[in-house]
Amino acid sequence: MNTYPPLPRIVLEPIVRRALEEDFGNAGDVTANLLIPATATGKLYFRARETGVISGMQAAVLTYELVDPAIKLTVIHGDGSTVRKGTIIASVEGPVRSMLMAERVALNFLGRMSGVATLTSKFVKKTEGRKARIAATRKTTPGLRALEKRAVLHGGGFTHRQSLSDAIMVKDNHIALAGGVEKAVKAIMKNADHMCHVSIEVDTVEQFKKVLRHRPNVILLDNMALKDLKACVKLGKGKVTLEASGGINLRTVADIAATGVDVISIGALTHSSPNFDIGLDANEK
Amino acid sequence: MNTYPPLPRIVLEPIVRRALEEDFGNAGDVTANLLIPATATGKLYFRARETGVISGMQAAVLTYELVDPAIKLTVIHGDGSTVRKGTIIASVEGPVRSMLMAERVALNFLGRMSGVATLTSKFVKKTEGRKARIAATRKTTPGLRALEKRAVLHGGGFTHRQSLSDAIMVKDNHIALAGGVEKAVKAIMKNADHMCHVSIEVDTVEQFKKVLRHRPNVILLDNMALKDLKACVKLGKGKVTLEASGGINLRTVADIAATGVDVISIGALTHSSPNFDIGLDANEK
Amino acid sequence: MNTYPPLPRIVLEPIVRRALEEDFGNAGDVTANLLIPATATGKLYFRARETGVISGMQAAVLTYELVDPAIKLTVIHGDGSTVRKGTIIASVEGPVRSMLMAERVALNFLGRMSGVATLTSKFVKKTEGRKARIAATRKTTPGLRALEKRAVLHGGGFTHRQSLSDAIMVKDNHIALAGGVEKAVKAIMKNADHMCHVSIEVDTVEQFKKVLRHRPNVILLDNMALKDLKACVKLGKGKVTLEASGGINLRTVADIAATGVDVISIGALTHSSPNFDIGLDANEK
Amino acid sequence: MNTYPPLPRIVLEPIVRRALEEDFGNAGDVTANLLIPATATGKLYFRARETGVISGMQAAVLTYELVDPAIKLTVIHGDGSTVRKGTIIASVEGPVRSMLMAERVALNFLGRMSGVATLTSKFVKKTEGRKARIAATRKTTPGLRALEKRAVLHGGGFTHRQSLSDAIMVKDNHIALAGGVEKAVKAIMKNADHMCHVSIEVDTVEQFKKVLRHRPNVILLDNMALKDLKACVKLGKGKVTLEASGGINLRTVADIAATGVDVISIGALTHSSPNFDIGLDANEK
Amino acid sequence: MNTYPPLPRIVLEPIVRRALEEDFGNAGDVTANLLIPATATGKLYFRARETGVISGMQAAVLTYELVDPAIKLTVIHGDGSTVRKGTIIASVEGPVRSMLMAERVALNFLGRMSGVATLTSKFVKKTEGRKARIAATRKTTPGLRALEKRAVLHGGGFTHRQSLSDAIMVKDNHIALAGGVEKAVKAIMKNADHMCHVSIEVDTVEQFKKVLRHRPNVILLDNMALKDLKACVKLGKGKVTLEASGGINLRTVADIAATGVDVISIGALTHSSPNFDIGLDANEK
Amino acid sequence: MNTYPPLPRIVLEPIVRRALEEDFGNAGDVTANLLIPATATGKLYFRARETGVISGMQAAVLTYELVDPAIKLTVIHGDGSTVRKGTIIASVEGPVRSMLMAERVALNFLGRMSGVATLTSKFVKKTEGRKARIAATRKTTPGLRALEKRAVLHGGGFTHRQSLSDAIMVKDNHIALAGGVEKAVKAIMKNADHMCHVSIEVDTVEQFKKVLRHRPNVILLDNMALKDLKACVKLGKGKVTLEASGGINLRTVADIAATGVDVISIGALTHSSPNFDIGLDANEK
Repeated sequence: MNTYPPLPRIVLEPIVRRALEEDFGNAGDVTANLLIPATATGKLYFRARETGVISGMQAAVLTYELVDPAIKLTVIHGDGSTVRKGTIIASVEGPVRSMLMAERVALNFLGRMSGVATLTSKFVKKTEGRKARIAATRKTTPGLRALEKRAVLHGGGFTHRQSLSDAIMVKDNHIALAGGVEKAVKAIMKNADHMCHVSIEVDTVEQFKKVLRHRPNVILLDNMALKDLKACVKLGKGKVTLEASGGINLRTVADIAATGVDVISIGALTHSSPNFDIGLDANEK
Repeated sequence: MNTYPPLPRIVLEPIVRRALEEDFGNAGDVTANLLIPATATGKLYFRARETGVISGMQAAVLTYELVDPAIKLTVIHGDGSTVRKGTIIASVEGPVRSMLMAERVALNFLGRMSGVATLTSKFVKKTEGRKARIAATRKTTPGLRALEKRAVLHGGGFTHRQSLSDAIMVKDNHIALAGGVEKAVKAIMKNADHMCHVSIEVDTVEQFKKVLRHRPNVILLDNMALKDLKACVKLGKGKVTLEASGGINLRTVADIAATGVDVISIGALTHSSPNFDIGLDANEK
Repeated sequence: MNTYPPLPRIVLEPIVRRALEEDFGNAGDVTANLLIPATATGKLYFRARETGVISGMQAAVLTYELVDPAIKLTVIHGDGSTVRKGTIIASVEGPVRSMLMAERVALNFLGRMSGVATLTSKFVKKTEGRKARIAATRKTTPGLRALEKRAVLHGGGFTHRQSLSDAIMVKDNHIALAGGVEKAVKAIMKNADHMCHVSIEVDTVEQFKKVLRHRPNVILLDNMALKDLKACVKLGKGKVTLEASGGINLRTVADIAATGVDVISIGALTHSSPNFDIGLDANEK
Repeated sequence: MNTYPPLPRIVLEPIVRRALEEDFGNAGDVTANLLIPATATGKLYFRARETGVISGMQAAVLTYELVDPAIKLTVIHGDGSTVRKGTIIASVEGPVRSMLMAERVALNFLGRMSGVATLTSKFVKKTEGRKARIAATRKTTPGLRALEKRAVLHGGGFTHRQSLSDAIMVKDNHIALAGGVEKAVKAIMKNADHMCHVSIEVDTVEQFKKVLRHRPNVILLDNMALKDLKACVKLGKGKVTLEASGGINLRTVADIAATGVDVISIGALTHSSPNFDIGLDANEK
Repeated sequence: MNTYPPLPRIVLEPIVRRALEEDFGNAGDVTANLLIPATATGKLYFRARETGVISGMQAAVLTYELVDPAIKLTVIHGDGSTVRKGTIIASVEGPVRSMLMAERVALNFLGRMSGVATLTSKFVKKTEGRKARIAATRKTTPGLRALEKRAVLHGGGFTHRQSLSDAIMVKDNHIALAGGVEKAVKAIMKNADHMCHVSIEVDTVEQFKKVLRHRPNVILLDNMALKDLKACVKLGKGKVTLEASGGINLRTVADIAATGVDVISIGALTHSSPNFDIGLDANEK
Repeated sequence: MNTYPPLPRIVLEPIVRRALEEDFGNAGDVTANLLIPATATGKLYFRARETGVISGMQAAVLTYELVDPAIKLTVIHGDGSTVRKGTIIASVEGPVRSMLMAERVALNFLGRMSGVATLTSKFVKKTEGRKARIAATRKTTPGLRALEKRAVLHGGGFTHRQSLSDAIMVKDNHIALAGGVEKAVKAIMKNADHMCHVSIEVDTVEQFKKVLRHRPNVILLDNMALKDLKACVKLGKGKVTLEASGGINLRTVADIAATGVDVISIGALTHSSPNFDIGLDANEK
């Protein structure tokens, strides 16, 4: 079963509209209009110029549709597909002027989102055979969270909180201001809405023990050494969800997964993924 | 004189509002509300955790202002400042609940834009002593072009076109569809609005010669070998602006600048810059 | 002839979009996506669980259309229809995921608007045989005035002013501030735009007499005893439109209608109508 | 500690703006402009005309501020306050024209939201001494969910899910389509995001037993008889959160609370609460 | 008493924001930023370069405020003032960059709206001593109706309908489609909302007589000869409001007013008024 | 080749939506709904009532489509067509209610934009045989710049800058504040983005000479006498683009074109063009 369905159009459309508006100004494409006859039609091919996971295709499809419904975009390898360098992932056919006008915005969505999906998939591969899931954070690009969270799903990861109102996460600064971790946990477990997940961040095994007693849904183990992670796993397994976090990268992720944690959350998935290179070619071969 | 003034608030405010709306959902910060007394106040410090150039501070300031005007943000090293690892770049003081609610969005702006500015500054440094400018492209994050173009300015680069309606750029696909480069250039030089800059892309020295005759404002030299770039510089110097482009990186940029081109444009400035690490600390020291 | 046509889509669409946006957040329906295969289709039936008048169907149709045009909604008893408990009023057929995602918003529109229409129809029934019309006020739900005014039409009532700029209504506080009712009426009759209806509120028969002389279009009789209403009707019949108002309910409305007033306006139609119960069933029978 | 802080202005402002736009049309208040001198100032008092709990005051304050910052609104009994009939809850002072122009919208917010809060408080009172919480549902007025959920908090209730993307709720139709409750629960517990709360709806004690084994966070007991509720409480106490739901009213809620369930959720809090009567008087006494 | 108060900010602000957004694109003023130091301040004077009536000043004030609250605009002759050629109507002082950036949009509002007000005042002057009012129509600039209707007020005219939902106007095509004027008037008088003004358009004295019997609020005399207008005035005086319309200009308006009609409505006030010339000078004298 | 293609729908749609929203209020067309049966259909013809150039047809088409997709608008003489008085330029067929509701907004777009196109074409005709182009300015109607710039193209003119961020224009006030024209030009030529066109305004031949040395793209000759224009043409021909500006009208434009300037820019094209009269008739003949 497909567990990463398309975004609702209600959510996606305003994002795509804004991207087009910012690229069109008051006049649209002043170049194509001077060179290309209004009746010219053509066909172009989206080609992956590296190996990775595609994302942003739903946004690219909507980009062309909003620019000109006469353009026909055929998806060959859609969101979530793993493709090799050189693969044609989609073709686009129709009025040339409209196609040129929509091109840059469509590629900007595809390049960035496939970049997020591809980086996610590399983390996922490093943890194969472990139960640890790779998860995103709220360190997403302003205005693009909905799309970037889908891109993480496309790469095999999980989304984590979508917004500040989804679930409760108690971090170090909350704890400091609330007068210590125990007091904070107690207040939360008493007052939280019954439909609200609760996650508490801890830095040390000592803190972990104190928090574990109150059985929040998740305990977030922040920047812990491997041996401390293992100690927490030993104590907390099956009682709470254990999430490791803090500066984790492709070199360190395998060892962290090996500690037995349930989730590894990584800001870099969305804030530091390089663009995935996709070209738009006139030739199919 | 400061040649990179703040963005007009008319342009910036909708971007910041959308970032906050996407992070707040219907309820805002469900965590802080349960733990922090409404009257609690505090002070936090933004600290650069690496060395680089700051950008996104104007957006961060507006983020806090829109969340709660009672928060006072003091900028120490604003947009365009070069800072060392460990430097405190700003402090924020006021109601704790509001500060926590605004924190992630402010950091997301600062991290991404300082990332763009810092990468730009690295390219600029590699070309020191050359006349070549470093310039961005339209390969920007959907919805954030205004901010990312400013970030390139903060890093010492130039913005290039802001939108499809700013200036005319004739690329390979235009040329193919218009029946060859000469025909395309002629049509453009005849019909273009008199306030519209014209840039023509060429792949070979032969093409360059044909285009040069028509004196567009800029000739874009796409993916050319160093010797071809040099040949074009020799032919075109002082007659047109010469712009090199195509997969240029920190290892190759110095040699390209040495050819004597006027401008080097680089998509990676905005589509592949890693996040710049900024922390929010309770302690000033 | 149908005197309550559908709302212009230009007016309705932003209302429905906002309702969906507030229910979808950044991710849409996280439940259906995990349980229902993307290809699953089905059919569901909207059933009235009480007897009353349907309204909000136009909004429900647009809700499904905006979520997924592949859903087919068949209206059996549309806006303005009187239905008995147990009647199927519409069916919806198509992709299950999309149908589940749209369900709550569609029902929220139908339940509230049918509630308004049904309460209106009860007031209308109580005044059968009298010339008095039942009319709404501006005491509508913020953001839903256009829909609620239609719901009153669907229930057999009339809309009254749609906004502050439609017509002139002089109330007690205006009169107090303008230096008495006569001075106020004179100023209004002299300066009002010639396309602007004028209504003046009075509390006593004495005031009524003073105002009547100036022939406004409507005199609003606020919270008057039945005998005073009758006195005003006797004096004003055929000269101005007579509107009774002020805390009128289902027990008192018949007596008020019997006084011979032309219009009875009731805030409760839109601010205190209970939800009309509509279920979504898998079975038609 | 105040556990129902004000809504973020980012969330509230668009709601209030739309309410004013729909009431102002292109011309604003055509009545006040003809009668009241531009320089006239005055003072009015908001008086509760019944006993209950105030909500919507934050929206009323913003309404006046957006209409004219020269108006000074002084809150005496703010959101969450219980007041008796006749109590003055706020005063408003400033330019008369602006005050009249803003009055209806401010009252519409106050009347509806205080209605929700007051009805909630009546349910809360009926369950005093029981651990059962009163909770809202997603059966809210389209466009006003954020405000109505706060109104439930002001009345002493809890919010439940804010949107479809907050948490997982598996209902009867999901179960039917997923091939039975056990299969559904298994799929959910395996694939749900680790930050996502899970609630499963059951109709019978048999179903309850099957679901309980999988330890979702919440089991929703839909339309169960009191003895079945008690049976479920006995089985599930301390293992999952037990939520009763389905047509519960002020006559039945006490008995349901007495069964020992943790939460009672009631759609009527937001979809059928009558308006709370608040008047705007010229006299303070 | 001032009968043309400022527009509500709720109505005006979106209009001014859009005007600035369309003029700023993604970068704002690329010229001023390169030439003017960020700290430079200055003062400029708005001077009327012809004689007429000022309008659009409220929009100009808001334009500067939205661009930079540090700019101080001092109004000397505000909306509705009659000024002579050469008069300074306002001064603006503050940061030069911001002032230059806002200048064109502010002048575009002032020039167009003062043009409407001035043309209106010329029509008003031609009808001095007659009771006939000069009124606008719905032939306004798309997106600017609220401002243009105020400009007509500033020039001494009246606004007529603000929107299609304000009042009922039955025109020739309605009558044709409704099966004749009498049938149309009957249907309208029976079904119209009691707060809705009714105007019926007639072309001949015969039609006028038929319509007059039903006492609509207004009868619109379309493109009638002077003698027919006089005939209608004789018949209808004091019974209905008589409005002349149809291609009326500055040469014909006096004769039409002399017939005794109550209102003369003129599309040209808003659709064909030339710009009123206002300059922005560095010198006050 | 058509060098004035339609506006991107992304740009046009928000403009048309706002125009409809401002005309519909909360209720739409209260007249048609009372008179015209929901099922009535009909056909109407747009007829030019004067001779000129059509523009605004694209907006009219979208107006009808947004009001009711069941309306079929057939364009006979589209944007850019020159038509004689009496010519039918389009027909519209479909549901009568919807057609009446959309009529005024469609005509408002057509009348204003055809007015701009027609006035432009008159200037173009006066300069026939000269190389001088007729160009618009930024003196456009707030909110309608995109459409008015197209209307100028339709009339045979050129658009000039679309926004403040398109190109650099140094005017008298910039020069005064920058310390003289030479200093200003130098600063600009050094710091301007390489894709940014540069235009410098001069008042005298002396200034012209100083500026010419720096070879900006355009020199704007402001309010110069014919002999001075000729002197500048003699000096600058082939070196820069020469643009004349300042109070040019239909009587003076031919002489100015005869001086040999390249461009003549005229604010009146967009700020003072009278409405072009188009009627909507029931009869085709």
